[in-house]
Amino acid sequence: MARRYRAVVEYDGAAYAGFQRQANQPTVQSALEQAIERTTGQNVVVLGSGRTDAGVHARGQAIAFDVAWRHGVEALQRALNARLPADISILSLAITKEDFHPRFDACKRTYLYTINNEPVRSPLHRRASWHVRRPLDLAAMNEAASALVGVHDFGTFGRPPKGENTVRQVYEAFWRRQRALLLFQITANAFLYRMVRSLVGSMKLVGEGTWTASDFVAALEACDRSRAGTTAPPHGLTLLSVTYDECV
Amino acid sequence: MARRYRAVVEYDGAAYAGFQRQANQPTVQSALEQAIERTTGQNVVVLGSGRTDAGVHARGQAIAFDVAWRHGVEALQRALNARLPADISILSLAITKEDFHPRFDACKRTYLYTINNEPVRSPLHRRASWHVRRPLDLAAMNEAASALVGVHDFGTFGRPPKGENTVRQVYEAFWRRQRALLLFQITANAFLYRMVRSLVGSMKLVGEGTWTASDFVAALEACDRSRAGTTAPPHGLTLLSVTYDECV
Repeated sequence: MARRYRAVVEYDGAAYAGFQRQANQPTVQSALEQAIERTTGQNVVVLGSGRTDAGVHARGQAIAFDVAWRHGVEALQRALNARLPADISILSLAITKEDFHPRFDACKRTYLYTINNEPVRSPLHRRASWHVRRPLDLAAMNEAASALVGVHDFGTFGRPPKGENTVRQVYEAFWRRQRALLLFQITANAFLYRMVRSLVGSMKLVGEGTWTASDFVAALEACDRSRAGTTAPPHGLTLLSVTYDECV
Repeated sequence: MARRYRAVVEYDGAAYAGFQRQANQPTVQSALEQAIERTTGQNVVVLGSGRTDAGVHARGQAIAFDVAWRHGVEALQRALNARLPADISILSLAITKEDFHPRFDACKRTYLYTINNEPVRSPLHRRASWHVRRPLDLAAMNEAASALVGVHDFGTFGRPPKGENTVRQVYEAFWRRQRALLLFQITANAFLYRMVRSLVGSMKLVGEGTWTASDFVAALEACDRSRAGTTAPPHGLTLLSVTYDECV
């Protein structure tokens, strides 16, 4: 008898055209579905908590799928990880309720964006950070970030999934420095497409002095996609975690 | 007129057969020499502080080379970085004395070895860490590491460069935990070939309980290459820094 499983998945997005299945493109979803099929002989659809764009990474993508399996959850996790490519891994796996949906049941998502803010590019950081040569003003970027917290119409910074509006609730948004890296962490109930990358691209304009923090707030309040600044590249972005069962 | 330049170089070693030039193999040294030749039209030999093995990374490899250049040191650094591949970068560049030698003048080298000690492999850490599933005992590994400090014959843990003996002075050697990562940092006047990887492979035996810390010390004291444990894989190793002018 098939049961619904939920899993937390880590992946290096460099080789994928994003999470969601697409014809003739390598995607994380299809890699997961293939590993499940090879392990169980069953054709399954993997549900995700949300799309991530091409090149975006995840430390904590949440997924679910239905499968019949007799040998225990740990054995299934090991078998799947043995078949998954080196750039995708199932960190945890559990049986869940049959109507669990990783996207619709999610309360919060947290993303991390990494800027490598050094004059010279770094070979060892190049895969998971955006290299910005010009020194960025962290205090100014944090002033902009603080304006994001709360319920806002984020229409300036992204498109909604079909049938949804552009209002989202941001619980936390801040920058911190870790040696040469500037890390932006943001938690919201949900995100628009491209939203984190669009926010980071615009806050980078604040950090370099092209925009003031007030310009950023004015762009936010305009609710006009054409008012956004640049979009930060995907390889600096990581989906850190998706939270269930503890909505505020 | 040619001047001698010294540089600090960062590289991702994954694509290279090590630092040192070899016929028909991509090496960091030959990539640097090609970039210098394309920039200046001059055929140069790049001196390094030491070889790193195939797959080993560096955040602070020290190099030197002689070249005639009229346009300033910063312009040379920019021009070289523009020609170097994305996995090699010159972090700093300066004119130095004409007899400076990055290997013979070095006082200390510091290496970092990273073990990812989690039950499940991590796609995002896979390029620069050794995945060890079994939980390792950090205290026992640190007991072993503390035996390394001082002047010892390290013949058990590596071969010397031609014409040298196997005695080295270790200034510092310790493990620390950073979430799921176990980081081993070691500073010595110089290292034998494979020495850090051989030490880490043997300390991993201590961490998993196959060896006691006393077994490790006995292997060290035996000065016998056949007494070493396993050799840790190269992609977990990074040359952090090379120090000049402040020998203890």
